[in-house]
Amino acid sequence: MKGTMLYGARDVRFEDRPDPTIIEPTDAIIKLSAACVCGSDLWPYRGIDPVKQPVAMGHEYCGIVQEVGGEVRHIKPGQFVVGSFFASDNTCEICNSGYQSSCVNRQPGAPTGAQAEYARIPLADGTLVATPELPPADLIPSLLSTSDVLGTGWFGAAAAEAGPGKTVAVVGDGAVGLLAILSAKQMGAERIIAMSRNPDRQKLALEFGATDIVTERGDEGVARIKDLTNGLGAHSVIEAVGTQESMMQSIRATRAGGHVGFVGVLHGVEIEGWEYFFSHVHLHGGPAPVRNYLPHLIDLVWNRKINPGKVFDLTLPLAQVAEGYKAMDERHAIKALLIP
Amino acid sequence: MKGTMLYGARDVRFEDRPDPTIIEPTDAIIKLSAACVCGSDLWPYRGIDPVKQPVAMGHEYCGIVQEVGGEVRHIKPGQFVVGSFFASDNTCEICNSGYQSSCVNRQPGAPTGAQAEYARIPLADGTLVATPELPPADLIPSLLSTSDVLGTGWFGAAAAEAGPGKTVAVVGDGAVGLLAILSAKQMGAERIIAMSRNPDRQKLALEFGATDIVTERGDEGVARIKDLTNGLGAHSVIEAVGTQESMMQSIRATRAGGHVGFVGVLHGVEIEGWEYFFSHVHLHGGPAPVRNYLPHLIDLVWNRKINPGKVFDLTLPLAQVAEGYKAMDERHAIKALLIP
Repeated sequence: MKGTMLYGARDVRFEDRPDPTIIEPTDAIIKLSAACVCGSDLWPYRGIDPVKQPVAMGHEYCGIVQEVGGEVRHIKPGQFVVGSFFASDNTCEICNSGYQSSCVNRQPGAPTGAQAEYARIPLADGTLVATPELPPADLIPSLLSTSDVLGTGWFGAAAAEAGPGKTVAVVGDGAVGLLAILSAKQMGAERIIAMSRNPDRQKLALEFGATDIVTERGDEGVARIKDLTNGLGAHSVIEAVGTQESMMQSIRATRAGGHVGFVGVLHGVEIEGWEYFFSHVHLHGGPAPVRNYLPHLIDLVWNRKINPGKVFDLTLPLAQVAEGYKAMDERHAIKALLIP
Repeated sequence: MKGTMLYGARDVRFEDRPDPTIIEPTDAIIKLSAACVCGSDLWPYRGIDPVKQPVAMGHEYCGIVQEVGGEVRHIKPGQFVVGSFFASDNTCEICNSGYQSSCVNRQPGAPTGAQAEYARIPLADGTLVATPELPPADLIPSLLSTSDVLGTGWFGAAAAEAGPGKTVAVVGDGAVGLLAILSAKQMGAERIIAMSRNPDRQKLALEFGATDIVTERGDEGVARIKDLTNGLGAHSVIEAVGTQESMMQSIRATRAGGHVGFVGVLHGVEIEGWEYFFSHVHLHGGPAPVRNYLPHLIDLVWNRKINPGKVFDLTLPLAQVAEGYKAMDERHAIKALLIP
């Protein structure tokens, strides 16, 4: 098959790769219906996470099951399935508490890479969720989004305790931040403040449910959030970037007793204790337990209650995956959809 | 009157001080029934928080109201009252959300110092809670404890979401840590692990409700907690020290999806983002909103459901306050009670 490898900073190659095969009896092989580039793929692409050896790329996936191992009981060949970036048994105590992305048997969700024609998915029964039947083509981008970018935005909103009566601010206008807005709206937030200076992203933010736009960043951004909230700060802030500046902006924009939900993978961040102590802010986040949310998110998409696939503003043939990375790196695209 | 001043590291003086008077019409003057030394007083006493000028000490207090300002409506002379280390209006949006220690009109709770004969308490109506009638003498230590050390332990347990079915670990065997054990027990925790290597403190921990004792610290302490919890970590960990080691020990001893409640004032702590991100642990803490808990805690003491006053294992005349600091600094005493 053909698949995507990252050889070093900005060196993405679409090349011949071994066809994935069943290795463990709990595996499934899927044929990708669509693939995409994740904001977190840009960390190694930009050389911030060093690439020590060529690595198979892609961890967001949906597609048709081709084959399953001998111990797979619930997932069947021919089903359309969605999984996430961590495979989980969905039976351990941590999974049962809703944190499948910290499953005691956690593995990479698509170890052979999902920016490819086929992928091997470990722990298929615990990891994959099937749609009621084969989906119409126009739902595929939204179904793919549930695999990571929507699931991650949803977790950010849940960790920030977005809900009725709450003012929610979202730091970061990438695809995750935008879908955190959609998530907060679904959770009934009263007011949703998008922090963005990009007109296209502002437009999508408003379409997804933002009620206010703040273009300032850092201390000025915090001051604007306070202006909009009686000087107190937002009840809930979703951090969807992962830098020192965005994390501190998030903590400082939250009122005492409020909640920060952080889902940008933290890079080079140190949270200073004294300031954090007196902030009185709840912190929660990490790798989203997407598996926990997949049944609900797939249901919302299937019944056309939400259209998260709108974050894909660039569609390319999978063979042009390198162009997808470049467009996202240069912020010409919010998120690139790749069609095998 | 006589009161306590700290002039520099280990330089505590009990000396003549001006009698406190009503300054704002919302003030009250109280005559202290008992006073005490707080673990947090040891930070400046040890010179870790530098003392730039002589400072009036003591922020835990209970006593009889002597006089109130013209705008005080609910607190009356002759009442026995308890307050906390921050004065709060108890009417603002932050107070109403249960975070009185971040009140928008927050002030020091006893700006004239409470290791003294008399104290001025600002925002008396919002800050002070009266007992049903004058208390018997034997309840006074426990009532005093609600002012800070119990209220702080209670917040630690609440922030760590201690409750039925939960395994709770407590890092720190000072008075706050010990009363966090009592608090977790009151909240219905199933199992409470005290981390202590001091036999007297272990004994009190067991009396307050601890079910297990762990004597190891740091990575070994974390390993012991995991041994006791199927390798997963505790559901809830209460951090009652405030150092880098104790904070990281707390985060690492908590299972994915679990909660750290931190109430030790964080000194020189930096929480590294990458490790914290993948821990999946909730963090919440800060200065305890004692005012939120005072009515309930006073009620528990009044009805003799709890006996938190047991943390006072040294009683001294107020004039010997310097000895109280010394005994706590050298860990000869858990907590010193001072009788005016």
